[in-house]
Amino acid sequence: MADQTALQAVLDRIDADFDASLERLFALLRIKSISADPAYAGECRTAAEHLARDLAGVGFDTQIRPTEGHPVVLGKTTGQGPRVLFYGHYDVQPVDPLDLWQRPPFDPALVTLPDGRDAIVARGAADDKGQAMTFIEACRAWKAATGSLPLQVTILIEGEEEVGSKHLGSFLAANRNDLAADVALVCDTNMWDAGTPAITTSLRGLVYEEVRVTASDRDLHSGLYGGAAQNPIRVLTRILGAIHDAQGRVTIPGFYDGVQELPDEVRRQWAALRFTPETFLKPVGLSQPAGEADRMLIEQVSSRPTCDINGIVGGYTGEGSKTVIPSQASAKISFRLVGAQDPEAIREAFRAFVRARLPADCTAEFLSHTNAPAIALDWTMPQLRTTQAALTAEWGREAVLIGSGASIPIVADFRRTLGLDTLLVGFGLDDDRVHSPNEKYDVTSFRKGTRSWARILAALAS
Amino acid sequence: MADQTALQAVLDRIDADFDASLERLFALLRIKSISADPAYAGECRTAAEHLARDLAGVGFDTQIRPTEGHPVVLGKTTGQGPRVLFYGHYDVQPVDPLDLWQRPPFDPALVTLPDGRDAIVARGAADDKGQAMTFIEACRAWKAATGSLPLQVTILIEGEEEVGSKHLGSFLAANRNDLAADVALVCDTNMWDAGTPAITTSLRGLVYEEVRVTASDRDLHSGLYGGAAQNPIRVLTRILGAIHDAQGRVTIPGFYDGVQELPDEVRRQWAALRFTPETFLKPVGLSQPAGEADRMLIEQVSSRPTCDINGIVGGYTGEGSKTVIPSQASAKISFRLVGAQDPEAIREAFRAFVRARLPADCTAEFLSHTNAPAIALDWTMPQLRTTQAALTAEWGREAVLIGSGASIPIVADFRRTLGLDTLLVGFGLDDDRVHSPNEKYDVTSFRKGTRSWARILAALAS
Repeated sequence: MADQTALQAVLDRIDADFDASLERLFALLRIKSISADPAYAGECRTAAEHLARDLAGVGFDTQIRPTEGHPVVLGKTTGQGPRVLFYGHYDVQPVDPLDLWQRPPFDPALVTLPDGRDAIVARGAADDKGQAMTFIEACRAWKAATGSLPLQVTILIEGEEEVGSKHLGSFLAANRNDLAADVALVCDTNMWDAGTPAITTSLRGLVYEEVRVTASDRDLHSGLYGGAAQNPIRVLTRILGAIHDAQGRVTIPGFYDGVQELPDEVRRQWAALRFTPETFLKPVGLSQPAGEADRMLIEQVSSRPTCDINGIVGGYTGEGSKTVIPSQASAKISFRLVGAQDPEAIREAFRAFVRARLPADCTAEFLSHTNAPAIALDWTMPQLRTTQAALTAEWGREAVLIGSGASIPIVADFRRTLGLDTLLVGFGLDDDRVHSPNEKYDVTSFRKGTRSWARILAALAS
Repeated sequence: MADQTALQAVLDRIDADFDASLERLFALLRIKSISADPAYAGECRTAAEHLARDLAGVGFDTQIRPTEGHPVVLGKTTGQGPRVLFYGHYDVQPVDPLDLWQRPPFDPALVTLPDGRDAIVARGAADDKGQAMTFIEACRAWKAATGSLPLQVTILIEGEEEVGSKHLGSFLAANRNDLAADVALVCDTNMWDAGTPAITTSLRGLVYEEVRVTASDRDLHSGLYGGAAQNPIRVLTRILGAIHDAQGRVTIPGFYDGVQELPDEVRRQWAALRFTPETFLKPVGLSQPAGEADRMLIEQVSSRPTCDINGIVGGYTGEGSKTVIPSQASAKISFRLVGAQDPEAIREAFRAFVRARLPADCTAEFLSHTNAPAIALDWTMPQLRTTQAALTAEWGREAVLIGSGASIPIVADFRRTLGLDTLLVGFGLDDDRVHSPNEKYDVTSFRKGTRSWARILAALAS
């Protein structure tokens, strides 16, 4: 349907309209849509309304659908050809520690990096506003240059990805008909490097737990009670400090159940990749892989499960000193899962691990934030090769198929609830500082990402 | 000098003037003199000026002396007889967590406790504004009833006790002549129980350290870096979780050097005291002593050294979840010392313990908040028996000599710098919630505490 002439007109349009594309992204980045903090619920709503207006302007039939949390934006076109379901999220991570940002996080700007690359700097620049806008801008260019899209598109932009997409599973189940498609597309992953495009064919799962340990029923003076009163920070550090052994393995019983060894062929391929501490860790100030001692670095971050403590707090944390034995201490702990690891089983094993180590007078309360299995794509699906060819044409370098250490829980739901496989195509880079101060998105990622989607839409249409 | 008639007139005056005494204490409690937080430096200054005015009104020759931190209030009377140096502090602990207070912490009020006792509720009600005011009110009553004090009094009220009295050591050294006395008096300790007065003859020392562990040079995404990047919370919990062994003993090499075993006689006496988990721990929601498994509860809180983690923070601690590997994590750790334990040696042993457990790519920074040895009084000093008799007369029950688990670092400085022994007489109770939300001081403690000092001044004068 979409011939080469039409595609070239679309690509030209993208280049000609690029300054306006940037300004539209900046407008979205100015909205403080932090989903984790209830204080920003109004800003999340504003982001949804902003996107709905923008999609309607492109020609989508658009709706803002409520959930029990932040709303979902839905846009549909009709017409001929296969139907794709594109997924992105308008919510962003919190911005603390704010004092480490070189500019206000919601005042986007173009900056030139030390190596000469131009980048868009703001919270959400990469994750996921910039990435989602590459797809929307590609659709806009198709409409502007040819009057229509080359296939049928449904766009779903949610507002709770950064808090575990907790209401999206039920939303999918309740809206199966509206979301019917032939394949799902997600733009929330990285390239292999700044010159090499990639399709992510596997993702780690995620179990995210919060635990609060309580001992006495009030804060105590450590001089009067110290030595006799149980200290919940001592209890919590003792338990969390026992999760890893000296070799970096997770000690929770059953944790590695369902983890598969790499096929020999993949292991050989990965060993040949130049994925080294020098290239991966040195840019963030580290030198030694800290994972399982007997695993390659690339295994540690993609094919092996992990446990990280993402936050901990208890007692007096202000300036100076306070001789307190606090009543409570709490921590946030997450597990990245691979293969057939069962999220439910791991959550329960973690809770049992904690409970078994609680001394007298201590109780533990748990809160579940996320519970998603790992996913892996069928490498024989036809759209995978088509998409790979489109990416290769845009970037002039063979697009690679990679596994990612990150988790996008919704991909498992697309399979389970909608029966859809998902093509994960993204233009992020390892130095984008996603979830960190000074998050950025390369201008090249944004421009060539938009052009890539224009090509992929054409490829999937034919 | 002070005959029984004069003393009775003073005691009557205290009772007659008690409502005004309470109002004067409330006025002091309304000043937010939190020494740990630089934002309250002005309030500390205000508290010093308030006390100086009040002491001048009683007839003291009064000065506010600057230090490198918060100022010291000094008041002196002249006349006949021995000279006592009274010490108290006008600074208070921070008030967090504020949401656990049933009333604003700096809006003092009288409340009736469930068992019928009346209490003054406010931050500092017991520690140490209420306690310090018992002495000042006793002096005021002596002046009002008899026109003079029965002996010579120097009052020193400092503003940095809650942050380790860090500038008071040098202040004592620089003002030896002004502070010359025969004995020091401190009102910052507890009674044995609500009916039994006590003199504290030993105090634990205190080493208070802060440690910050740094790994990567920025916060990282736990999906992309999890498994490969060192996590400082994991490192810190592993180190802190190793400080105690399964028997509750501190594992830092050399920690118990200088700790003496109890004399058999004292051990027998202590074993006979009814100091049980039921009486001491149950009121705060605990049931099992958490210290060294082979020690009596009373040893754990008074004659044995301890380690407590007073605060810990790292990563994301807000609502919801954030998949971050933080760059840093930090903790505040304190050690209570006994006998001849060397604070300097213990501080260095702790730092070496941490450094020896740091993996590659991690650094630790340390901050010292307090460094004070334990102290013990000579049981043969004559003022001890005189004071004991005065307390026994006021309360109608034999005053007991006890050891305290708390630390008042200045007492060691009085001995070292001024050559003074210190009588620690206080009217606090175990349920005063010092350093906690809803701190209180029994009205009976305040009234009979004031009367007790009136008697002690008479006893020490003769």
